[in-house]
Amino acid sequence: MSAPKKVVLAYSGGLDTSIILKWLQTEYGCEVVTFTADLGQGEELEPARKKAEMLGVSKVYIEDLREEFVRDFVFPMFRANALYEGLYLLGTSIARPLISKRLVEIAAAEGADAVAHGATGKGNDQVRFELAAYALNPDIKVIAPWRLWDLTSRTRLLEFAEQNQIPVAKDKRGEAPFSVDANLLHTSSEGKVLENPAEEAPDYVLQRVVPVEQAPNEPEFIEVSFEKGDAVAINGEAMSPATILTKLNEYGGKHGIGVLDLVENRFVGMKSRGVYETPGGTLLLEAHRGIEQITLDSGAGHLKDSIMPRYAELIYNGFWFSPEREMLQALIDKSQEHVTGTVRLKLYKGSARTVARWSDHSLYSEAHVTFEEDAGAYNQEDAKGFIQLNALRLKLLAARNRRLKG
Amino acid sequence: MSAPKKVVLAYSGGLDTSIILKWLQTEYGCEVVTFTADLGQGEELEPARKKAEMLGVSKVYIEDLREEFVRDFVFPMFRANALYEGLYLLGTSIARPLISKRLVEIAAAEGADAVAHGATGKGNDQVRFELAAYALNPDIKVIAPWRLWDLTSRTRLLEFAEQNQIPVAKDKRGEAPFSVDANLLHTSSEGKVLENPAEEAPDYVLQRVVPVEQAPNEPEFIEVSFEKGDAVAINGEAMSPATILTKLNEYGGKHGIGVLDLVENRFVGMKSRGVYETPGGTLLLEAHRGIEQITLDSGAGHLKDSIMPRYAELIYNGFWFSPEREMLQALIDKSQEHVTGTVRLKLYKGSARTVARWSDHSLYSEAHVTFEEDAGAYNQEDAKGFIQLNALRLKLLAARNRRLKG
Amino acid sequence: MSAPKKVVLAYSGGLDTSIILKWLQTEYGCEVVTFTADLGQGEELEPARKKAEMLGVSKVYIEDLREEFVRDFVFPMFRANALYEGLYLLGTSIARPLISKRLVEIAAAEGADAVAHGATGKGNDQVRFELAAYALNPDIKVIAPWRLWDLTSRTRLLEFAEQNQIPVAKDKRGEAPFSVDANLLHTSSEGKVLENPAEEAPDYVLQRVVPVEQAPNEPEFIEVSFEKGDAVAINGEAMSPATILTKLNEYGGKHGIGVLDLVENRFVGMKSRGVYETPGGTLLLEAHRGIEQITLDSGAGHLKDSIMPRYAELIYNGFWFSPEREMLQALIDKSQEHVTGTVRLKLYKGSARTVARWSDHSLYSEAHVTFEEDAGAYNQEDAKGFIQLNALRLKLLAARNRRLKG
Amino acid sequence: MSAPKKVVLAYSGGLDTSIILKWLQTEYGCEVVTFTADLGQGEELEPARKKAEMLGVSKVYIEDLREEFVRDFVFPMFRANALYEGLYLLGTSIARPLISKRLVEIAAAEGADAVAHGATGKGNDQVRFELAAYALNPDIKVIAPWRLWDLTSRTRLLEFAEQNQIPVAKDKRGEAPFSVDANLLHTSSEGKVLENPAEEAPDYVLQRVVPVEQAPNEPEFIEVSFEKGDAVAINGEAMSPATILTKLNEYGGKHGIGVLDLVENRFVGMKSRGVYETPGGTLLLEAHRGIEQITLDSGAGHLKDSIMPRYAELIYNGFWFSPEREMLQALIDKSQEHVTGTVRLKLYKGSARTVARWSDHSLYSEAHVTFEEDAGAYNQEDAKGFIQLNALRLKLLAARNRRLKG
Repeated sequence: MSAPKKVVLAYSGGLDTSIILKWLQTEYGCEVVTFTADLGQGEELEPARKKAEMLGVSKVYIEDLREEFVRDFVFPMFRANALYEGLYLLGTSIARPLISKRLVEIAAAEGADAVAHGATGKGNDQVRFELAAYALNPDIKVIAPWRLWDLTSRTRLLEFAEQNQIPVAKDKRGEAPFSVDANLLHTSSEGKVLENPAEEAPDYVLQRVVPVEQAPNEPEFIEVSFEKGDAVAINGEAMSPATILTKLNEYGGKHGIGVLDLVENRFVGMKSRGVYETPGGTLLLEAHRGIEQITLDSGAGHLKDSIMPRYAELIYNGFWFSPEREMLQALIDKSQEHVTGTVRLKLYKGSARTVARWSDHSLYSEAHVTFEEDAGAYNQEDAKGFIQLNALRLKLLAARNRRLKG
Repeated sequence: MSAPKKVVLAYSGGLDTSIILKWLQTEYGCEVVTFTADLGQGEELEPARKKAEMLGVSKVYIEDLREEFVRDFVFPMFRANALYEGLYLLGTSIARPLISKRLVEIAAAEGADAVAHGATGKGNDQVRFELAAYALNPDIKVIAPWRLWDLTSRTRLLEFAEQNQIPVAKDKRGEAPFSVDANLLHTSSEGKVLENPAEEAPDYVLQRVVPVEQAPNEPEFIEVSFEKGDAVAINGEAMSPATILTKLNEYGGKHGIGVLDLVENRFVGMKSRGVYETPGGTLLLEAHRGIEQITLDSGAGHLKDSIMPRYAELIYNGFWFSPEREMLQALIDKSQEHVTGTVRLKLYKGSARTVARWSDHSLYSEAHVTFEEDAGAYNQEDAKGFIQLNALRLKLLAARNRRLKG
Repeated sequence: MSAPKKVVLAYSGGLDTSIILKWLQTEYGCEVVTFTADLGQGEELEPARKKAEMLGVSKVYIEDLREEFVRDFVFPMFRANALYEGLYLLGTSIARPLISKRLVEIAAAEGADAVAHGATGKGNDQVRFELAAYALNPDIKVIAPWRLWDLTSRTRLLEFAEQNQIPVAKDKRGEAPFSVDANLLHTSSEGKVLENPAEEAPDYVLQRVVPVEQAPNEPEFIEVSFEKGDAVAINGEAMSPATILTKLNEYGGKHGIGVLDLVENRFVGMKSRGVYETPGGTLLLEAHRGIEQITLDSGAGHLKDSIMPRYAELIYNGFWFSPEREMLQALIDKSQEHVTGTVRLKLYKGSARTVARWSDHSLYSEAHVTFEEDAGAYNQEDAKGFIQLNALRLKLLAARNRRLKG
Repeated sequence: MSAPKKVVLAYSGGLDTSIILKWLQTEYGCEVVTFTADLGQGEELEPARKKAEMLGVSKVYIEDLREEFVRDFVFPMFRANALYEGLYLLGTSIARPLISKRLVEIAAAEGADAVAHGATGKGNDQVRFELAAYALNPDIKVIAPWRLWDLTSRTRLLEFAEQNQIPVAKDKRGEAPFSVDANLLHTSSEGKVLENPAEEAPDYVLQRVVPVEQAPNEPEFIEVSFEKGDAVAINGEAMSPATILTKLNEYGGKHGIGVLDLVENRFVGMKSRGVYETPGGTLLLEAHRGIEQITLDSGAGHLKDSIMPRYAELIYNGFWFSPEREMLQALIDKSQEHVTGTVRLKLYKGSARTVARWSDHSLYSEAHVTFEEDAGAYNQEDAKGFIQLNALRLKLLAARNRRLKG
């Protein structure tokens, strides 16, 4: 790869990406454009502007992507009830393709030939950033300084910062006890004090969910309404996608809901342990399942269930912008046409449970299921034929096996 | 179907199956043998013996099947982390094939040509009983009185009981407000007061789990140990399969864990709403997932996840004794050879969470995953090639699409 | 089910459906409307009109559905490369939903409360007809005389015909040596002389494909062009869907292509043996695969392959009009956006082989794959990292297993 | 990676691997052991011994692995009816893990710390060799000279050979018009004259199958017998696995059967075009499917079909020695317990067709399927209930949709 001439850097304003910024300038003598996105991580972005300007970047992009993030990435994913390895709500995975998309778009607008990110060579995020970038622009260069440079210890990083007049906040001089990623969907923590999966995670890891013992002693009930598979209102009040997720985060966080301590399999081949806080997402999944229970037919639901693990794996592995993810999305979206209605959730001490659901689109038929007289809605005699023909091949098998033994 | 000569009846000792017993005698003039199994439903069985004898059966079978139930049915199913429609632990489904197996075996021993059960024509249980029976003996007759007789109202049932000197407990004169099935794995409740899925289930439905608000205010921690995928000890104490599940039920029930309010799709084509209590099973699933997280490789785990919905559907639909369930079981069992180790669970107010896990069989490598210097365990440069080749097809796609637009 | 008042009958004009027509009139005293479709079965339809009028029907529908059949049913199915049980091109299965659709539409137009078909109670077609009808109109009555009447022998059928002045062609007095179904996609033969799967099917069974020994001794080459997954031209000449299939049938039939002798599993639980002739369909599948080879990415292709068996099973079982078939169709159609280009087939003595393919939408990159110097298109060093990270989990497994043994 | 001290080289005796041998000696100053396997590629192996000795290797291994290859690799794979991308019989893929297994075993026996292979950095074989090696010994070094050296043109290779006294056969001075790999299962050809998929492959590419026009003008019939899914006899004569495959190759080759011209997706991300000759394998697949048709139940068969693409992909990608391949194998093997019986194939001008099949283990029931009176084997009335309950959810859907429109 020839040296880049102009680079768009995914820039948080923090120490690490500031060092990357300076390293790009010194290593390649190239122009750097920074891109800082508000994905709901809950940090002020204006300091990033000032810091970038101070470090001599040619242009600063700061954008609020929260609505796009929830509408075009989070919500489509939740239509699938996606869980990686049975448990993980994919909070980090789903944010990466959007960042890459904007990086590539800004590169095109700015005439940059490269983009850069601050993910390490051991993790999934490098894969997600880069696969998305290449899928959107096959000629883009992607620079991953953590895989390239020799700043491999904390000491050397701080030296580099000092040598290059990068301000280091006092509390960054020591190392954080774990590493954090956050956006509107979740906060993840991993590394350091969390590296031994036989050791319980300390409570101070939690960033946005109260420890469950401190959650209110009274349950709270909320109603989440859906249209075509997407949440559109809470307690009857219509809200934008990002507003709904923000609100659900508040409810979930308050009640200690959505904390997951997981050992997962990274795409790069190793296992890692993380603590994930996804308060709003946990409520959203529960409510979405609740509304699907009455509005989705079993054929549709079972098909969705059967492809879900593959869909989740694709997102986890970084293949959001791939034909197969888009094909699965087409399948999933097709199923959501009638996933419209309202679910009541009970929130209490770490749990969100569906306790009621109703919909004009309901397929539930009390007339059919009732223990009472059903006025001919269902003919119990039909069950005999249904069972007999389902049993036929089993009978033929049993007869064959008996014949061979006899 | 010609009239049966001798019938083995799945007999609970309750009013409904007592009426069936008498109906079989009067309808077919046939000999009746009763079979009553202890599957952990928590009822005295000796009264069933006396009642059966009083009703004139030729032979009474009463058997404690709890160990067989857990060892050969529940545990194999939990190796798969089976959940029907994402949520249901299949507590009723998994008990039916064992009952049918014993019915068919007793029929063979007693020279009976038929078996009978008390499941209605609207539900899944008729299918499960009958598919299992036919799979084990293709020539057996299966009699399902609820699909045959004209005792279609409570009044007529009680009249029949009275006419036939079947004792009716005073509290059975009125109708129960919902219908219950129970075994060592779960208690299910459905019908009547639960028929409207928009109405919250009343607390009095719960049979073995305390309402979550009444659970202890202090968390409790337990350690569950596994060998080859099956639970073998709690807090270091080795126990038999049924003892472990009994013990887990106590822990879960006390902490309000394992209650599910679900609208599900029955195999016979309608939706129904049930409240399921599976305290021990919920702990077992969480712990099994926890130990798999460190002992199962991603290739094995993802394959298991991808076939799980089908496996669960087969059990739900009654195909336990089918070639495809056995094939999937072979696949699942093969994966469990190293699923050995211990998980620590935190039980609190309705939730069971894995907080730690360890194993001699662990695949977790702190050397690889560490944020610290890894002494060459992992070469970050490898990630570049990994990403480039995973990206190659995406680049070719992007180049093609650009070429066509250009 | 109460007696029907007005019935729309799927009417071929043959003896069996004429008997059904008369039986409906006499059994129910109801009005009968006939519907006869040209699906390319290769029979004159006007005699059906005369016969129906002679038998006293109130209205006769005769329609040429060939274009709709190929465009809306055959082509969508071929986008999936659908094969039931690895081999069967679903020629009968795919025609049934269209017939049911028109039956239900005509019933609505005519104010009829029922439809009727001539399929027996042992086969798949009854299921396909009825599931499609119920999916389109949940209140329609479907009458299947073969499951109802007592005309269970050839002799009784002929007696009934005679008693009711139904003309019987001389050659229909004896029984046909096998049963035939035909449409533009295929001809199937089954029953009687074909019932023993250990006996070779006689050559006289073949209706539209020449016995392979009699095919030309010289190969013939044709070029089939596709747009978005559908065939649009042969040898550069654009044609309508039905014309293309007709033309492909001629090519295939002449060269002895597309004969399949199969024992398959019916949905109703038994195995049956059939001989299928699908000359044009066999060419179409081969050509479609050929064009997908260069225009479809591996992620898309492998996903399609993985869901294909389920898609084929749904069509075979009669679930064309179901949410899950439509969801799978959405997935498949999404994949076909670039399946555009031309395939050259070699036709010879029973085989159709792709020998060349080209497309503006091709993803094949000679620059990448070449054994020659590739000018940097591909960096062989990337393979090392790709392999190392794919191997990482396998190494961790091997190390674990060695550790436990050591 | 530190330099290897002792290397076991997969050695064909040809020019390329002889150059590798010398290069290893000169590059690393290491000891080289050669391993040459007879996998049925149809070449004399003794010349390899002489050449290796002449080039100064410390030890020569020459082994006939044909029986192990067919028994433990080819046959298990054929139990699955494995086809990669719908068409490819995986002839090259299945041979690589066995070679790696022996390389690793010999390395252990000889105290070697490395193995080496002659596959290039663009293909699948490097991946297959290396994943298998690492799965069997996580500490082994694998050396792939084609990814390392600078002998990147034919000229430089020949110069190196000359400088190092490696004899070059006269006909190797020019370049072969395409590249060939062969073993008992297949011969593959690719590269050079085959690189343009729009150009028909010339007949001279074929190595072991006669051009179809030159095949006999008379069909030939053979009978292949199976036990538990594996071929055990031809025309009633019992044979060893390798003998059966050798014999089937003769039959297929003579009749022009088993030639495939394919553009496929390599694991490394590019498309390539190959011509594959798999005469015996094509017969084996057809016959295996034929015997499964009557001995395998639909539940088992459909499950096998649904996982087959994944199984084939695993083998293609080099994951033979992986937990997930072994899990799928357990599933497949479980299904084959009754796949026992005989199939008659008709071989003619490029095609192998099943024309008859019979088995003591047959599930085909003429009593059930017959068009004649079936003596009560099947009750056609059962079909009504079967259809009604399968239709129930479709009716509920249709009613819901109508209600919403109304």
